Amino acid sequence: MKLVRSLGRITPALKQFPEKEKRIGFVPTMGAFHEGHISLIRKAKKENDVVVVSIFVNPTQFAPNEDYEKYPRDIRRDREKAKNAGCDILFCPDTGSMYPKGYNTYVEVKKAAALMCGRSRPGHFRGVTTICAKLFNIITPDTVYFGRKDYQQALIVKNMVNDLNMDLKIKILPIVREKSGIALSSRNRYLLPAQREDAKLLYQALKKARKIIRAGERDVSRIRSAIRKVLNKPGINIDYISIASPDTLKRKRKIDENVLIALAAKIGKVRLIDNMLVGVGIKNKGAKIC
Amino acid sequence: MKLVRSLGRITPALKQFPEKEKRIGFVPTMGAFHEGHISLIRKAKKENDVVVVSIFVNPTQFAPNEDYEKYPRDIRRDREKAKNAGCDILFCPDTGSMYPKGYNTYVEVKKAAALMCGRSRPGHFRGVTTICAKLFNIITPDTVYFGRKDYQQALIVKNMVNDLNMDLKIKILPIVREKSGIALSSRNRYLLPAQREDAKLLYQALKKARKIIRAGERDVSRIRSAIRKVLNKPGINIDYISIASPDTLKRKRKIDENVLIALAAKIGKVRLIDNMLVGVGIKNKGAKIC
Repeated sequence: MKLVRSLGRITPALKQFPEKEKRIGFVPTMGAFHEGHISLIRKAKKENDVVVVSIFVNPTQFAPNEDYEKYPRDIRRDREKAKNAGCDILFCPDTGSMYPKGYNTYVEVKKAAALMCGRSRPGHFRGVTTICAKLFNIITPDTVYFGRKDYQQALIVKNMVNDLNMDLKIKILPIVREKSGIALSSRNRYLLPAQREDAKLLYQALKKARKIIRAGERDVSRIRSAIRKVLNKPGINIDYISIASPDTLKRKRKIDENVLIALAAKIGKVRLIDNMLVGVGIKNKGAKIC
Repeated sequence: MKLVRSLGRITPALKQFPEKEKRIGFVPTMGAFHEGHISLIRKAKKENDVVVVSIFVNPTQFAPNEDYEKYPRDIRRDREKAKNAGCDILFCPDTGSMYPKGYNTYVEVKKAAALMCGRSRPGHFRGVTTICAKLFNIITPDTVYFGRKDYQQALIVKNMVNDLNMDLKIKILPIVREKSGIALSSRNRYLLPAQREDAKLLYQALKKARKIIRAGERDVSRIRSAIRKVLNKPGINIDYISIASPDTLKRKRKIDENVLIALAAKIGKVRLIDNMLVGVGIKNKGAKIC
Protein backbone atom coordinates (compact mmCIF):
# COMPACT_ATOMS: atom_id res chain seq x y z
CA MET A 1 0.00 0.00 0.00
CA LYS A 2 1.23 3.46 -0.89
CA LEU A 3 0.68 6.36 1.51
CA VAL A 4 0.16 9.67 -0.32
CA ARG A 5 0.12 12.77 1.84
CA SER A 6 0.31 15.39 -0.84
CA LEU A 7 -2.31 16.54 -3.33
CA GLY A 8 0.32 16.86 -6.05
CA ARG A 9 1.41 13.22 -5.70
CA ILE A 10 -1.94 11.45 -5.97
CA THR A 11 -2.33 11.60 -9.77
CA PRO A 12 1.20 10.21 -10.41
CA ALA A 13 0.49 7.48 -7.82
CA LEU A 14 -2.69 6.49 -9.67
CA LYS A 15 -0.85 6.50 -12.99
CA GLN A 16 1.57 3.86 -11.74
CA PHE A 17 -1.16 1.26 -12.03
CA PRO A 18 -1.54 -0.22 -15.52
CA GLU A 19 -3.97 1.91 -17.53
CA LYS A 20 -5.92 -0.62 -19.55
CA GLU A 21 -9.48 -0.97 -18.26
CA LYS A 22 -8.35 0.00 -14.80
CA ARG A 23 -11.30 0.16 -12.42
CA ILE A 24 -10.78 2.48 -9.47
CA GLY A 25 -12.78 1.92 -6.28
CA PHE A 26 -12.80 4.80 -3.81
CA VAL A 27 -13.69 4.97 -0.12
CA PRO A 28 -13.74 8.57 1.20
CA THR A 29 -13.43 8.66 5.00
CA MET A 30 -12.51 10.85 7.95
CA GLY A 31 -10.39 8.04 9.39
CA ALA A 32 -10.72 6.48 12.86
CA PHE A 33 -11.60 3.23 11.13
CA HIS A 34 -14.04 0.68 12.49
CA GLU A 35 -15.47 -2.45 10.87
CA GLY A 36 -17.93 -0.31 8.91
CA HIS A 37 -15.09 1.37 7.03
CA ILE A 38 -13.28 -1.94 6.64
CA SER A 39 -16.34 -3.53 5.04
CA LEU A 40 -16.32 -0.74 2.42
CA ILE A 41 -12.62 -1.20 1.66
CA ARG A 42 -13.02 -4.97 1.34
CA LYS A 43 -15.96 -4.59 -1.02
CA ALA A 44 -14.04 -2.04 -3.10
CA LYS A 45 -11.14 -4.49 -3.33
CA LYS A 46 -13.44 -7.24 -4.60
CA GLU A 47 -14.93 -5.07 -7.31
CA ASN A 48 -11.96 -3.01 -8.59
CA ASP A 49 -8.36 -3.13 -9.77
CA VAL A 50 -7.18 -0.25 -7.59
CA VAL A 51 -8.61 0.79 -4.23
CA VAL A 52 -8.08 4.34 -3.00
CA VAL A 53 -9.05 5.26 0.56
CA SER A 54 -8.93 8.90 1.62
CA ILE A 55 -8.60 10.11 5.19
CA PHE A 56 -9.47 13.77 5.50
CA VAL A 57 -11.20 15.34 8.48
CA ASN A 58 -13.06 17.91 6.40
CA PRO A 59 -13.42 21.23 8.24
CA THR A 60 -16.24 22.54 6.00
CA GLN A 61 -18.66 19.85 7.17
CA PHE A 62 -18.32 20.78 10.85
CA ALA A 63 -20.31 23.69 12.26
CA PRO A 64 -18.30 26.07 14.50
CA ASN A 65 -19.75 24.53 17.69
CA GLU A 66 -19.04 20.95 16.61
CA ASP A 67 -16.22 18.50 17.30
CA TYR A 68 -13.82 19.22 14.40
CA GLU A 69 -10.83 19.70 16.71
CA LYS A 70 -11.73 16.69 18.84
CA TYR A 71 -12.67 14.35 16.01
CA PRO A 72 -10.56 11.19 16.51
CA ARG A 73 -7.37 11.05 14.41
CA ASP A 74 -5.28 7.91 14.47
CA ILE A 75 -3.41 7.64 11.19
CA ARG A 76 -0.92 4.98 12.32
CA ARG A 77 -3.64 2.54 13.35
CA ASP A 78 -5.77 3.41 10.30
CA ARG A 79 -2.82 2.76 8.01
CA GLU A 80 -2.45 -0.83 9.21
CA LYS A 81 -6.17 -1.47 8.99
CA ALA A 82 -6.50 -0.03 5.48
CA LYS A 83 -3.56 -2.09 4.26
CA ASN A 84 -4.94 -5.30 5.70
CA ALA A 85 -8.36 -4.66 4.13
CA GLY A 86 -6.87 -4.32 0.64
CA CYS A 87 -6.29 -0.58 0.17
CA ASP A 88 -3.74 0.22 -2.57
CA ILE A 89 -3.41 3.97 -2.07
CA LEU A 90 -4.13 5.73 1.23
CA PHE A 91 -4.62 9.42 0.45
CA CYS A 92 -4.26 11.83 3.40
CA PRO A 93 -4.04 15.36 2.01
CA ASP A 94 -3.48 18.33 4.29
CA THR A 95 -6.17 20.93 4.88
CA GLY A 96 -4.15 23.76 3.34
CA SER A 97 -3.87 22.06 -0.03
CA MET A 98 -7.54 21.08 -0.12
CA TYR A 99 -8.73 24.54 0.91
CA PRO A 100 -5.99 26.98 -0.09
CA LYS A 101 -6.21 30.68 0.72
CA GLY A 102 -8.99 32.29 -1.28
CA TYR A 103 -10.94 29.04 -1.58
CA ASN A 104 -14.41 30.05 -2.65
CA THR A 105 -16.49 27.28 -4.28
CA TYR A 106 -19.30 25.18 -2.82
CA VAL A 107 -21.48 22.41 -4.19
CA GLU A 108 -24.90 22.26 -2.66
CA VAL A 109 -27.80 19.84 -2.96
CA LYS A 110 -30.99 21.60 -1.95
CA LYS A 111 -34.10 20.12 -0.33
CA ALA A 112 -32.83 16.77 1.04
CA ALA A 113 -29.87 18.58 2.64
CA ALA A 114 -32.18 20.83 4.67
CA LEU A 115 -34.00 17.93 6.35
CA MET A 116 -33.03 15.56 9.19
CA CYS A 117 -29.37 16.13 10.11
CA GLY A 118 -29.40 19.27 7.93
CA ARG A 119 -31.69 21.00 10.42
CA SER A 120 -29.36 20.66 13.37
CA ARG A 121 -26.12 20.82 11.38
CA PRO A 122 -26.47 23.82 9.04
CA GLY A 123 -23.86 23.77 6.27
CA HIS A 124 -22.89 20.17 7.06
CA PHE A 125 -24.05 18.62 3.80
CA ARG A 126 -22.72 21.52 1.75
CA GLY A 127 -19.33 20.64 3.23
CA VAL A 128 -19.84 16.97 2.43
CA THR A 129 -20.85 17.51 -1.21
CA THR A 130 -18.07 20.03 -1.74
CA ILE A 131 -15.32 17.74 -0.45
CA CYS A 132 -16.79 14.76 -2.33
CA ALA A 133 -16.86 16.73 -5.61
CA LYS A 134 -13.21 17.66 -5.06
CA LEU A 135 -12.12 14.13 -4.14
CA PHE A 136 -14.05 12.59 -7.03
CA ASN A 137 -12.31 14.96 -9.45
CA ILE A 138 -8.92 14.13 -7.94
CA ILE A 139 -9.32 10.34 -7.73
CA THR A 140 -11.55 9.82 -10.84
CA PRO A 141 -13.11 6.68 -9.37
CA ASP A 142 -15.42 4.28 -11.18
CA THR A 143 -17.25 3.38 -7.99
CA VAL A 144 -17.45 5.14 -4.63
CA TYR A 145 -18.48 3.28 -1.48
CA PHE A 146 -20.53 4.71 1.40
CA GLY A 147 -22.01 3.14 4.50
CA ARG A 148 -25.74 3.22 5.02
CA LYS A 149 -25.44 4.48 8.59
CA ASP A 150 -25.00 7.91 6.99
CA TYR A 151 -28.03 7.32 4.78
CA GLN A 152 -28.79 10.99 4.23
CA GLN A 153 -25.18 11.69 3.27
CA ALA A 154 -25.15 8.85 0.76
CA LEU A 155 -28.48 9.94 -0.75
CA ILE A 156 -27.32 13.55 -1.10
CA VAL A 157 -24.00 12.57 -2.68
CA LYS A 158 -25.90 10.30 -5.06
CA ASN A 159 -28.16 13.22 -6.00
CA MET A 160 -25.10 15.37 -6.65
CA VAL A 161 -23.49 12.71 -8.85
CA ASN A 162 -26.66 12.35 -10.94
CA ASP A 163 -27.38 16.08 -11.18
CA LEU A 164 -23.83 17.07 -12.10
CA ASN A 165 -23.44 14.18 -14.60
CA MET A 166 -20.43 12.76 -12.79
CA ASP A 167 -19.24 9.58 -14.48
CA LEU A 168 -19.16 7.25 -11.46
CA LYS A 169 -21.34 4.92 -9.45
CA ILE A 170 -22.24 5.28 -5.78
CA LYS A 171 -22.64 2.04 -3.82
CA ILE A 172 -24.18 2.02 -0.38
CA LEU A 173 -23.34 -0.90 1.90
CA PRO A 174 -25.21 -2.15 4.98
CA ILE A 175 -24.74 -0.77 8.49
CA VAL A 176 -22.25 -2.76 10.55
CA ARG A 177 -23.34 -3.18 14.18
CA GLU A 178 -21.81 -4.36 17.41
CA LYS A 179 -23.35 -7.48 18.91
CA SER A 180 -25.20 -5.14 21.22
CA GLY A 181 -26.92 -3.59 18.21
CA ILE A 182 -25.09 -0.25 18.41
CA ALA A 183 -24.25 0.96 14.88
CA LEU A 184 -20.48 1.35 14.52
CA SER A 185 -19.33 4.96 14.58
CA SER A 186 -16.01 6.67 15.16
CA ARG A 187 -17.74 8.69 17.87
CA ASN A 188 -18.77 5.59 19.90
CA ARG A 189 -15.38 5.65 21.61
CA TYR A 190 -16.52 8.70 23.55
CA LEU A 191 -19.40 6.83 25.22
CA LEU A 192 -19.05 6.05 28.94
CA PRO A 193 -20.21 2.57 30.01
CA ALA A 194 -23.61 3.79 31.21
CA GLN A 195 -24.04 5.80 28.03
CA ARG A 196 -23.41 2.68 25.98
CA GLU A 197 -26.53 1.22 27.57
CA ASP A 198 -28.49 4.25 26.40
CA ALA A 199 -26.93 4.06 22.93
CA LYS A 200 -28.25 0.52 22.50
CA LEU A 201 -31.77 1.89 22.72
CA LEU A 202 -31.49 3.59 19.29
CA TYR A 203 -31.44 0.23 17.57
CA GLN A 204 -34.04 -1.11 20.00
CA ALA A 205 -36.32 1.76 19.01
CA LEU A 206 -35.83 1.08 15.30
CA LYS A 207 -36.59 -2.60 15.80
CA LYS A 208 -39.69 -1.73 17.80
CA ALA A 209 -40.91 0.51 14.97
CA ARG A 210 -40.26 -2.17 12.39
CA LYS A 211 -42.13 -4.70 14.52
CA ILE A 212 -45.30 -2.66 14.79
CA ILE A 213 -45.18 -1.71 11.09
CA ARG A 214 -44.88 -5.38 10.23
CA ALA A 215 -47.85 -6.03 12.51
CA GLY A 216 -49.88 -3.66 10.35
CA GLU A 217 -49.47 -0.19 11.89
CA ARG A 218 -49.57 2.52 9.18
CA ASP A 219 -50.13 5.64 11.24
CA VAL A 220 -46.84 7.52 11.55
CA SER A 221 -47.72 9.45 14.72
CA ARG A 222 -48.33 6.18 16.57
CA ILE A 223 -45.04 4.73 15.33
CA ARG A 224 -43.23 7.88 16.46
CA SER A 225 -44.80 7.57 19.90
CA ALA A 226 -43.58 3.99 20.15
CA ILE A 227 -40.04 5.10 19.26
CA ARG A 228 -40.15 7.99 21.70
CA LYS A 229 -41.28 5.62 24.45
CA VAL A 230 -38.21 3.40 23.97
CA LEU A 231 -35.90 6.44 24.00
CA ASN A 232 -37.57 8.14 26.96
CA LYS A 233 -34.59 8.19 29.33
CA PRO A 234 -32.92 11.15 31.08
CA GLY A 235 -29.53 10.55 29.38
CA ILE A 236 -31.01 10.62 25.87
CA ASN A 237 -31.71 13.88 24.10
CA ILE A 238 -33.60 13.18 20.86
CA ASP A 239 -32.65 15.42 17.94
CA TYR A 240 -35.12 13.96 15.45
CA ILE A 241 -37.22 10.93 14.67
CA SER A 242 -37.89 10.84 10.95
CA ILE A 243 -40.19 8.42 9.17
CA ALA A 244 -39.67 9.40 5.60
CA SER A 245 -39.57 8.51 1.92
CA PRO A 246 -36.20 6.80 1.25
CA ASP A 247 -35.91 8.76 -2.01
CA THR A 248 -36.69 12.33 -0.92
CA LEU A 249 -36.41 12.16 2.91
CA LYS A 250 -39.76 13.93 3.06
CA ARG A 251 -41.70 12.93 6.14
CA LYS A 252 -44.68 10.65 5.67
CA ARG A 253 -48.00 10.89 7.45
CA LYS A 254 -49.09 7.43 6.48
CA ILE A 255 -46.96 4.50 5.50
CA ASP A 256 -47.90 3.85 1.88
CA GLU A 257 -44.47 2.78 0.61
CA ASN A 258 -41.21 1.42 1.99
CA VAL A 259 -39.91 3.91 4.52
CA LEU A 260 -36.71 5.10 6.06
CA ILE A 261 -36.80 5.41 9.83
CA ALA A 262 -33.95 7.61 10.92
CA LEU A 263 -32.95 8.77 14.38
CA ALA A 264 -30.48 11.25 15.79
CA ALA A 265 -29.90 11.70 19.51
CA LYS A 266 -27.34 13.06 21.89
CA ILE A 267 -26.17 10.59 24.51
CA GLY A 268 -24.47 12.99 26.88
CA LYS A 269 -22.31 15.07 24.55
CA VAL A 270 -22.04 12.37 21.87
CA ARG A 271 -24.35 12.79 18.88
CA LEU A 272 -25.32 9.45 17.36
CA ILE A 273 -27.42 8.56 14.33
CA ASP A 274 -28.99 5.32 13.19
CA ASN A 275 -31.57 4.23 10.64
CA MET A 276 -33.49 1.35 9.16
CA LEU A 277 -35.28 0.78 5.88
CA VAL A 278 -38.61 -0.93 6.47
CA GLY A 279 -40.34 -2.59 3.56
CA VAL A 280 -44.10 -2.86 3.45
CA GLY A 281 -44.32 -4.76 0.17
CA ILE A 282 -45.31 -1.65 -1.81
CA LYS A 283 -43.06 -0.61 -4.65
CA ASN A 284 -41.63 2.88 -4.25
CA LYS A 285 -42.29 5.40 -6.99
CA GLY A 286 -38.90 7.07 -7.13
CA ALA A 287 -35.42 5.70 -7.61
CA LYS A 288 -34.38 3.27 -4.88
CA ILE A 289 -31.18 4.12 -3.12
CA CYS A 290 -30.41 0.69 -1.62
CA MET B 1 -19.31 17.49 -38.08
CA LYS B 2 -21.67 15.41 -35.97
CA LEU B 3 -24.78 17.00 -34.46
CA VAL B 4 -25.70 15.42 -31.11
CA ARG B 5 -29.04 16.46 -29.68
CA SER B 6 -29.32 13.91 -26.89
CA LEU B 7 -27.44 13.69 -23.60
CA GLY B 8 -27.24 9.91 -23.92
CA ARG B 9 -25.47 10.08 -27.29
CA ILE B 10 -22.62 12.45 -26.49
CA THR B 11 -20.31 9.96 -24.74
CA PRO B 12 -20.58 7.39 -27.58
CA ALA B 13 -19.96 10.21 -30.08
CA LEU B 14 -16.78 11.21 -28.23
CA LYS B 15 -15.66 7.57 -28.09
CA GLN B 16 -15.70 7.33 -31.87
CA PHE B 17 -12.56 9.43 -32.02
CA PRO B 18 -9.33 7.44 -31.58
CA GLU B 19 -8.49 7.23 -27.89
CA LYS B 20 -4.70 7.57 -27.78
CA GLU B 21 -3.66 10.94 -26.39
CA LYS B 22 -6.86 12.50 -27.66
CA ARG B 23 -7.04 16.16 -26.70
CA ILE B 24 -10.57 17.52 -26.43
CA GLY B 25 -11.18 21.25 -26.83
CA PHE B 26 -14.56 22.52 -25.68
CA VAL B 27 -16.44 25.74 -26.41
CA PRO B 28 -19.61 26.07 -24.29
CA THR B 29 -22.07 28.58 -25.81
CA MET B 30 -25.69 29.67 -25.88
CA GLY B 31 -25.62 29.78 -29.69
CA ALA B 32 -26.44 32.78 -31.91
CA PHE B 33 -22.84 32.72 -33.08
CA HIS B 34 -20.83 35.78 -33.97
CA GLU B 35 -17.13 36.15 -34.77
CA GLY B 36 -16.31 36.02 -31.05
CA HIS B 37 -17.61 32.46 -30.82
CA ILE B 38 -15.98 31.56 -34.11
CA SER B 39 -12.58 32.75 -32.86
CA LEU B 40 -12.92 30.37 -29.89
CA ILE B 41 -13.82 27.40 -32.11
CA ARG B 42 -10.93 28.11 -34.47
CA LYS B 43 -8.47 28.33 -31.60
CA ALA B 44 -9.82 25.10 -30.12
CA LYS B 45 -9.34 23.41 -33.49
CA LYS B 46 -5.72 24.54 -33.64
CA GLU B 47 -4.91 23.21 -30.21
CA ASN B 48 -6.86 19.93 -30.00
CA ASP B 49 -7.71 16.68 -31.77
CA VAL B 50 -11.46 16.93 -31.20
CA VAL B 51 -13.51 20.11 -30.86
CA VAL B 52 -16.84 20.00 -29.10
CA VAL B 53 -19.13 23.04 -29.18
CA SER B 54 -22.25 23.06 -27.04
CA ILE B 55 -25.31 25.20 -27.68
CA PHE B 56 -27.56 25.34 -24.66
CA VAL B 57 -29.60 28.36 -23.62
CA ASN B 58 -29.27 27.65 -19.92
CA PRO B 59 -32.42 28.63 -18.01
CA THR B 60 -30.72 28.67 -14.58
CA GLN B 61 -28.52 31.62 -15.51
CA PHE B 62 -31.45 33.88 -16.41
CA ALA B 63 -33.36 35.71 -13.68
CA PRO B 64 -37.17 35.53 -13.99
CA ASN B 65 -37.37 39.07 -15.44
CA GLU B 66 -34.65 38.48 -18.03
CA ASP B 67 -34.68 37.49 -21.69
CA TYR B 68 -34.52 33.67 -21.50
CA GLU B 69 -37.53 33.24 -23.78
CA LYS B 70 -36.37 35.91 -26.20
CA TYR B 71 -32.70 34.93 -26.29
CA PRO B 72 -31.84 34.44 -29.98
CA ARG B 73 -31.92 30.82 -31.17
CA ASP B 74 -30.78 30.00 -34.68
CA ILE B 75 -29.50 26.45 -34.75
CA ARG B 76 -29.51 26.06 -38.54
CA ARG B 77 -27.25 29.06 -39.09
CA ASP B 78 -25.08 28.15 -36.07
CA ARG B 79 -24.62 24.64 -37.41
CA GLU B 80 -23.09 25.90 -40.65
CA LYS B 81 -20.85 28.37 -38.84
CA ALA B 82 -19.61 25.81 -36.32
CA LYS B 83 -18.83 23.31 -39.06
CA ASN B 84 -16.88 25.87 -41.09
CA ALA B 85 -14.88 26.92 -38.05
CA GLY B 86 -13.72 23.35 -37.37
CA CYS B 87 -16.21 21.97 -34.85
CA ASP B 88 -16.27 18.13 -34.75
CA ILE B 89 -19.24 17.59 -32.45
CA LEU B 90 -22.03 20.13 -31.98
CA PHE B 91 -23.83 19.23 -28.76
CA CYS B 92 -27.34 20.68 -28.35
CA PRO B 93 -29.01 18.89 -25.42
CA ASP B 94 -32.62 19.62 -24.47
CA THR B 95 -33.49 21.39 -21.24
CA GLY B 96 -35.41 18.41 -19.81
CA SER B 97 -32.40 16.11 -19.96
CA MET B 98 -30.03 18.69 -18.46
CA TYR B 99 -32.43 19.61 -15.66
CA PRO B 100 -34.70 16.61 -15.16
CA LYS B 101 -37.59 16.68 -12.67
CA GLY B 102 -36.23 16.81 -9.13
CA TYR B 103 -32.99 18.50 -10.21
CA ASN B 104 -31.49 19.88 -7.06
CA THR B 105 -27.74 20.60 -7.20
CA TYR B 106 -25.93 23.92 -7.60
CA VAL B 107 -22.28 24.90 -7.78
CA GLU B 108 -21.55 28.34 -6.44
CA VAL B 109 -18.44 30.51 -6.36
CA LYS B 110 -18.79 33.06 -3.61
CA LYS B 111 -17.37 36.61 -3.43
CA ALA B 112 -16.49 37.34 -7.11
CA ALA B 113 -19.98 36.15 -8.14
CA ALA B 114 -21.65 38.77 -5.92
CA LEU B 115 -19.87 41.72 -7.56
CA MET B 116 -20.37 43.53 -10.89
CA CYS B 117 -22.95 41.62 -12.97
CA GLY B 118 -23.76 39.51 -9.90
CA ARG B 119 -25.37 42.54 -8.23
CA SER B 120 -27.92 43.15 -10.95
CA ARG B 121 -28.31 39.51 -12.00
CA PRO B 122 -28.78 37.52 -8.76
CA GLY B 123 -28.30 33.79 -9.30
CA HIS B 124 -26.77 34.34 -12.76
CA PHE B 125 -23.29 33.06 -11.97
CA ARG B 126 -24.62 30.16 -9.90
CA GLY B 127 -26.41 29.11 -13.08
CA VAL B 128 -23.24 29.55 -15.12
CA THR B 129 -21.02 27.52 -12.78
CA THR B 130 -23.64 24.80 -12.41
CA ILE B 131 -24.09 24.29 -16.16
CA CYS B 132 -20.33 24.46 -16.71
CA ALA B 133 -19.70 21.80 -14.05
CA LYS B 134 -22.27 19.58 -15.74
CA LEU B 135 -20.92 20.15 -19.26
CA PHE B 136 -17.32 19.65 -18.16
CA ASN B 137 -18.28 16.30 -16.57
CA ILE B 138 -20.13 15.25 -19.73
CA ILE B 139 -17.53 16.36 -22.29
CA THR B 140 -14.35 15.73 -20.20
CA PRO B 141 -12.41 18.41 -22.08
CA ASP B 142 -8.69 19.08 -21.77
CA THR B 143 -9.14 22.78 -22.53
CA VAL B 144 -12.23 25.01 -22.40
CA TYR B 145 -12.37 28.30 -24.30
CA PHE B 146 -14.11 31.47 -23.13
CA GLY B 147 -14.23 34.97 -24.52
CA ARG B 148 -12.90 37.86 -22.47
CA LYS B 149 -15.99 39.98 -23.07
CA ASP B 150 -17.54 37.92 -20.27
CA TYR B 151 -14.48 38.48 -18.10
CA GLN B 152 -16.29 37.93 -14.82
CA GLN B 153 -17.81 34.68 -16.07
CA ALA B 154 -14.43 33.38 -17.20
CA LEU B 155 -12.79 34.34 -13.89
CA ILE B 156 -15.52 32.66 -11.86
CA VAL B 157 -15.42 29.47 -13.93
CA LYS B 158 -11.64 29.44 -13.54
CA ASN B 159 -12.04 29.77 -9.77
CA MET B 160 -14.47 26.86 -9.79
CA VAL B 161 -12.12 24.67 -11.83
CA ASN B 162 -9.22 25.36 -9.46
CA ASP B 163 -11.25 25.01 -6.26
CA LEU B 164 -12.98 21.77 -7.29
CA ASN B 165 -9.74 20.23 -8.66
CA MET B 166 -11.21 19.76 -12.14
CA ASP B 167 -8.62 18.32 -14.48
CA LEU B 168 -8.86 20.85 -17.31
CA LYS B 169 -7.50 24.20 -18.46
CA ILE B 170 -9.49 27.38 -19.04
CA LYS B 171 -8.28 29.63 -21.86
CA ILE B 172 -9.60 33.15 -22.25
CA LEU B 173 -9.38 34.75 -25.68
CA PRO B 174 -9.50 38.44 -26.64
CA ILE B 175 -12.70 40.39 -27.21
CA VAL B 176 -13.70 40.54 -30.87
CA ARG B 177 -15.05 43.96 -31.90
CA GLU B 178 -16.86 45.46 -34.84
CA LYS B 179 -14.93 48.13 -36.74
CA SER B 180 -17.07 50.63 -34.83
CA GLY B 181 -15.56 49.32 -31.60
CA ILE B 182 -18.72 47.64 -30.33
CA ALA B 183 -17.85 44.33 -28.65
CA LEU B 184 -19.58 41.47 -30.45
CA SER B 185 -22.56 40.08 -28.55
CA SER B 186 -25.54 37.96 -29.51
CA ARG B 187 -27.72 40.71 -28.05
CA ASN B 188 -26.36 43.41 -30.43
CA ARG B 189 -28.94 42.35 -33.02
CA TYR B 190 -31.63 43.97 -30.89
CA LEU B 191 -30.05 47.44 -31.15
CA LEU B 192 -31.85 50.01 -33.29
CA PRO B 193 -29.62 52.19 -35.51
CA ALA B 194 -29.64 55.13 -33.09
CA GLN B 195 -28.92 52.76 -30.19
CA ARG B 196 -25.90 51.41 -32.04
CA GLU B 197 -24.47 54.94 -31.87
CA ASP B 198 -24.93 54.87 -28.09
CA ALA B 199 -23.48 51.35 -27.87
CA LYS B 200 -20.25 52.58 -29.46
CA LEU B 201 -19.71 54.85 -26.48
CA LEU B 202 -18.96 51.90 -24.17
CA TYR B 203 -15.70 51.22 -25.96
CA GLN B 204 -15.07 54.96 -26.29
CA ALA B 205 -15.40 55.27 -22.52
CA LEU B 206 -12.98 52.39 -21.92
CA LYS B 207 -10.46 53.92 -24.29
CA LYS B 208 -10.83 57.29 -22.60
CA ALA B 209 -10.13 55.69 -19.23
CA ARG B 210 -7.09 53.90 -20.58
CA LYS B 211 -5.81 57.10 -22.07
CA ILE B 212 -5.95 59.08 -18.86
CA ILE B 213 -4.44 56.19 -16.85
CA ARG B 214 -1.61 56.03 -19.35
CA ALA B 215 -1.22 59.77 -18.93
CA GLY B 216 -0.62 59.16 -15.23
CA GLU B 217 -4.03 59.37 -13.53
CA ARG B 218 -4.19 57.00 -10.52
CA ASP B 219 -7.26 58.29 -8.72
CA VAL B 220 -10.19 55.98 -9.42
CA SER B 221 -12.95 58.50 -8.71
CA ARG B 222 -11.57 60.81 -11.39
CA ILE B 223 -11.35 57.95 -13.89
CA ARG B 224 -14.94 56.99 -13.11
CA SER B 225 -16.03 60.58 -13.70
CA ALA B 226 -14.34 60.57 -17.09
CA ILE B 227 -16.13 57.35 -18.04
CA ARG B 228 -19.47 58.67 -16.81
CA LYS B 229 -18.98 61.82 -18.86
CA VAL B 230 -18.59 59.80 -22.08
CA LEU B 231 -21.69 57.72 -21.30
CA ASN B 232 -23.80 60.66 -20.20
CA LYS B 233 -26.59 60.37 -22.79
CA PRO B 234 -30.34 59.97 -22.29
CA GLY B 235 -30.45 56.56 -24.08
CA ILE B 236 -27.77 55.04 -21.85
CA ASN B 237 -28.61 53.66 -18.44
CA ILE B 238 -25.39 52.72 -16.61
CA ASP B 239 -25.62 49.58 -14.47
CA TYR B 240 -22.06 49.71 -13.15
CA ILE B 241 -18.62 51.12 -13.79
CA SER B 242 -16.07 48.91 -12.07
CA ILE B 243 -12.37 49.62 -11.79
CA ALA B 244 -11.14 46.54 -10.05
CA SER B 245 -8.44 43.99 -9.38
CA PRO B 246 -8.38 41.56 -12.33
CA ASP B 247 -7.93 38.65 -9.88
CA THR B 248 -10.63 39.32 -7.29
CA LEU B 249 -12.87 41.91 -9.00
CA LYS B 250 -12.66 43.96 -5.81
CA ARG B 251 -12.94 47.67 -6.54
CA LYS B 252 -9.80 49.74 -6.24
CA ARG B 253 -9.52 53.23 -4.79
CA LYS B 254 -6.14 53.89 -6.26
CA ILE B 255 -4.55 52.25 -9.25
CA ASP B 256 -1.56 50.42 -7.82
CA GLU B 257 -1.61 47.39 -10.12
CA ASN B 258 -2.97 46.42 -13.55
CA VAL B 259 -6.71 46.92 -13.45
CA LEU B 260 -9.85 45.64 -15.05
CA ILE B 261 -12.23 48.36 -16.19
CA ALA B 262 -15.65 46.81 -16.69
CA LEU B 263 -18.91 48.42 -17.74
CA ALA B 264 -22.52 47.32 -17.96
CA ALA B 265 -25.26 49.52 -19.34
CA LYS B 266 -28.72 49.27 -20.75
CA ILE B 267 -29.12 50.81 -24.19
CA GLY B 268 -32.89 50.94 -24.39
CA LYS B 269 -33.89 47.44 -23.29
CA VAL B 270 -30.62 45.81 -24.36
CA ARG B 271 -28.12 45.15 -21.59
CA LEU B 272 -24.53 45.30 -22.86
CA ILE B 273 -21.21 44.68 -21.14
CA ASP B 274 -17.67 45.52 -22.11
CA ASN B 275 -14.27 45.62 -20.41
CA MET B 276 -10.61 46.37 -20.81
CA LEU B 277 -7.49 45.32 -18.94
CA VAL B 278 -5.20 48.29 -18.42
CA GLY B 279 -1.59 47.67 -17.51
CA VAL B 280 0.35 50.18 -15.45
CA GLY B 281 3.62 48.31 -15.48
CA ILE B 282 3.16 47.00 -11.94
CA LYS B 283 3.14 43.26 -11.44
CA ASN B 284 -0.10 41.96 -9.94
CA LYS B 285 0.11 40.00 -6.71
CA GLY B 286 -2.46 37.31 -7.44
CA ALA B 287 -2.79 34.88 -10.33
CA LYS B 288 -3.24 36.56 -13.68
CA ILE B 289 -6.30 35.53 -15.61
CA CYS B 290 -5.23 36.66 -19.07
